[in-house]
Formats: sequence, C-alpha cells, structure tokens
Amino acid sequence: MFKLFYAPGTCALATHIALEEAGAPFEAVRLDFGSQAQRSAEYLAINPKGRVPALVTESGTLTETPGLLLFVAQRFPQAKLAPLSDPFGLAQVQEFNSYLCSTVHVAHAHGRRGARWADNAAAIEAMKQKVPATMTECAELIEQKFLKGPWVMGERYTICDPYLFTIGTWLEGDGVDTTKLPRIVEHRKRMLARPAVQKAVAAEGTQLP
Amino acid sequence: MFKLFYAPGTCALATHIALEEAGAPFEAVRLDFGSQAQRSAEYLAINPKGRVPALVTESGTLTETPGLLLFVAQRFPQAKLAPLSDPFGLAQVQEFNSYLCSTVHVAHAHGRRGARWADNAAAIEAMKQKVPATMTECAELIEQKFLKGPWVMGERYTICDPYLFTIGTWLEGDGVDTTKLPRIVEHRKRMLARPAVQKAVAAEGTQLP
Repeated sequence: MFKLFYAPGTCALATHIALEEAGAPFEAVRLDFGSQAQRSAEYLAINPKGRVPALVTESGTLTETPGLLLFVAQRFPQAKLAPLSDPFGLAQVQEFNSYLCSTVHVAHAHGRRGARWADNAAAIEAMKQKVPATMTECAELIEQKFLKGPWVMGERYTICDPYLFTIGTWLEGDGVDTTKLPRIVEHRKRMLARPAVQKAVAAEGTQLP
Repeated sequence: MFKLFYAPGTCALATHIALEEAGAPFEAVRLDFGSQAQRSAEYLAINPKGRVPALVTESGTLTETPGLLLFVAQRFPQAKLAPLSDPFGLAQVQEFNSYLCSTVHVAHAHGRRGARWADNAAAIEAMKQKVPATMTECAELIEQKFLKGPWVMGERYTICDPYLFTIGTWLEGDGVDTTKLPRIVEHRKRMLARPAVQKAVAAEGTQLP
C-alpha cells in the first residue's frame, strides 16, 4: 500500500490521477498547508524539500511529479500509461512533463510563491503581475504546438494527460483567457469524463474552473 | 547522425556529455546567444521554445534536459547510463534530474533571466540578490541528502552525473561558497577525470570554476 502526500490545488493531483488510472493500491494523505504541515519535522523526515507530492513506496520515498509519473507508468505497465520501450516516445513524454515542471509550474508559482526568489514586497508584487502573460504564453505554446489531440501525445492516453489537466485547472485563476484555448479546454472535458479523474478530483475536493 | 544545438555555459552541456559517454554519433552546433540566434526564425522552426538544448534525432527533435538524458540512456542501452528496467531506480534518476531542472536551474536563472518573470528593473535586481541564498540552499540539499557518492546515485554512474556537473559549474558564479560543499567539489573532480567530460568541455570551451 503506497502513501501519497498531497495538498489540494497542487500538482500532486497529477500523481493522484495516475495512481487511480493504474489501479495502484494507495492511501492519499492530505497535508494542511494552512498550518504549514509541509514544514513540520515529521514531514521533512519524509521529504526534506518540504513540498508535495511525496509517494512512499515499497522501495522508498519518491518526489517530483515527472519522476513519480514515470514510476507509476513503469511500476504498473498493464495500465499502458507511457510508451515504455520506445526511447523517442518516452523521451517525448518526459520532454512534455519537464516543460510543465520547469517552465509552466514555475511561471504559476510566481503568483503565489514569489518569496522563493526575492525578498522585497514590491518585487513579489511585480512577479504576480506578470503571471497572466507568462502563463498565457505557455498555454498558447501547448495549445498550438504540443497538445497533439485528443490526448497530449496523440491517440494514446499517457502520464502527460493528468499533468496537463492538473496545471490546466490553474489557468483561469492565473488570469489566462481560456476562451482562446479551445483545445486545452476540450482536453479538460475529456479528462473529466474519465472515472479515475473524477475519483481523484472528488477525493481532493479540487476546485475546478 | 544526431545534431545537438547548444550554447556554452548552458545546461546543454549535460546532454553533450551524455552523448559522448554513450558513444553516440552526433554533431554539436553552437548557437550564438550574443546575436540572439536562439530567437531566429530558422531556430524557432527547430525548437519553438527558443532555447537550448535541442537534439535532432532520426525520429524527430527533442528538448528539455531530463527528457534528452533519458533518451540517450535508453537509445544507447549498452552505455548503461540509467537503471532502465528498475521502476524505482529510474524514478529516482528522474526525480533528481527534475529537481535540477525545476528548482536548481530555475534558481540560477533568476540571476540572469529575471525578465522572464517580472518587467521592472528593481524586481529583476531583487531576484539577482537572492540567487546566492537560493543556490546555496539547493546545493546544501544536494550535498547533504541527494548525492550518494561517489556518483549521484551511488556506485553507478548515471545521467544524473553530467547534469549535476553542468549545474555545478555555475555555483561559484552564483555566489555559492563551494568550500562548504566538499562532496560536490569532489564529484566535479571525479567528472573531470572522465574522457567524455573532457571532450565535451573542450568542444564547448566551458568555463570551469
């Protein structure tokens, strides 16, 4: 029985959905970010980064969404969540997920976690102001270049889909005009029709746009 | 024959080293960031993100270092650059590389590319000022928790090593006191003893600390 540490509204939802898709045995454990539970000594012993997600497995603890998603795909191969034996195909999956974690998630984080990168209030406010522009730029690139359709990688549903869905739930809150992103919006609807997505969203109480 | 687009001083060095380690057939193509060659129409047709690295392969073009490194490891399995058939082991590799791309590289980028996340000069300056602190925090976590030694993943050299080496060459320039990071410094020396590293560093003219 795995244990997934998450908080609502975070990228942990991507791994949560993937675990449901895979039919993995797991328990989801909510961390209360309001009381800074992610910085408690108890949690830092599990994940010294003080963030979510963290997945406790039979072999040890894993963090970082692109690593976790690959783990779920490879640990539960019967779920066919990634083209595991195709070097180019799997690299494309990791390329997309790397873009989400290193560019899109980072752009989003400047709206709420600016204190990570600057100490003064004016700078943090300036970062907030740019979020709609940077997130729109990222979303347009996904809409126009990366999302093949109907799923991110084309005909086949992969671990890219729960991750895009998760970050996609942030767009409106980040000031992105999604009426100009019909393919991303359609993808979101397609995701919400999947039982695994419905189950994870209900368990976390995810706020949908 | 692959084609690797790179610029000196960027994270493209990690993929460059991995290609050398794998004995892959490739040509390294330098982009002149001084003349903004990465934003030229010609290059944007190859990589719409306008960044390096990009690797043109027999199957298409790939970007994003964690994806590229996995590709090299899986496409050239005889080089044994990752525990490809061990779900937990491979996830640990991707976990470490995800941390480098989404947290450490991002912390570094605030020193030179602050305009990505804010428009006013004072905010960009405030970001610069925090780089020594954020990069030190990341490096300490790597030094104390993640670098198993002698290689990142322990006894076995993997695609984590060229990536850590590459980002490690930025530490002094980012104001990090590496005299307090003996394990990272030792790792750097160990890397520089490898012919593949020497070859890539010489080809790029990498400035070493």
